[in-house]
Amino acid sequence: MQSYHIRKKEREIKDINKIKGILKGGKYATISMCREKEPYIVTLSYGFDEEQFALYFHSANLGLKLDILKENSYVCGTVIEDLGYISGACSHKYRSIIFWGDMMIINEIEEKKHGFDVLLNHLEENPSKMKKQFFKTEKAYRDTCIIKLAIKSIFGKASE
Amino acid sequence: MQSYHIRKKEREIKDINKIKGILKGGKYATISMCREKEPYIVTLSYGFDEEQFALYFHSANLGLKLDILKENSYVCGTVIEDLGYISGACSHKYRSIIFWGDMMIINEIEEKKHGFDVLLNHLEENPSKMKKQFFKTEKAYRDTCIIKLAIKSIFGKASE
Repeated sequence: MQSYHIRKKEREIKDINKIKGILKGGKYATISMCREKEPYIVTLSYGFDEEQFALYFHSANLGLKLDILKENSYVCGTVIEDLGYISGACSHKYRSIIFWGDMMIINEIEEKKHGFDVLLNHLEENPSKMKKQFFKTEKAYRDTCIIKLAIKSIFGKASE
Repeated sequence: MQSYHIRKKEREIKDINKIKGILKGGKYATISMCREKEPYIVTLSYGFDEEQFALYFHSANLGLKLDILKENSYVCGTVIEDLGYISGACSHKYRSIIFWGDMMIINEIEEKKHGFDVLLNHLEENPSKMKKQFFKTEKAYRDTCIIKLAIKSIFGKASE
């Protein structure tokens, strides 16, 4: 991770507020995971918790990504703002971030509730309505898996 | 890889022509790489070679992704058609593919030329004009790195 540097310096986004803006504006992140030398990729809707500088995801309680995370929680992810390919210029315009961190399954019920709040506030236009609709009982929280990605390092890169 | 199966069967795209359609329509792929237990992610413009069922990418001749590929060429990638988040439904509409394969740096000049043709034909509206502009000499081919991803397995997944 420390070895990462952007070769084309003019493409680096240095302003942390711009980086946060990409995290706030994105709806989904694509995550690279490793089990031994076997790579895996998943794309997930997320909510951004600015205070903790973490992403929250929801998931079923079973699946390949959870199996892999139990073996290696260290992941690398990206959020991309696609600004479109420019024909005739051999160039694709974008703003993007790449980040590294640990992805942990949350078991504690209060943090699960917080994770759902972050997700609904990020994704939904009327989060309180959705909350009432989906989470009528504690069981509803228990039946869905909440995953937290605590971001340890992040880089922004753009070609605009 | 063999362990991959889609948990929600109704989301699987089984028609290979639909899967090819996503590959043909996409402009960039996001690739998960592993060096030992260290994950990495890159997003690259690509060209799809239907006959070889392979993707071609271009790159500078230096960089972290090339260092990682030299240690582990086995990658997992995705192409996503983002159809938008549906507010009020806790749902994101998409069509996507996930694939696995080996990513190889191409050194042989004729295959490099072929790779550039695939890329320009895929990405550009007027590929022959671009070709004349960029590749006036053999040196132009030598100075850019062409990478081939030979797809070994592929799955399609949609929520429409």
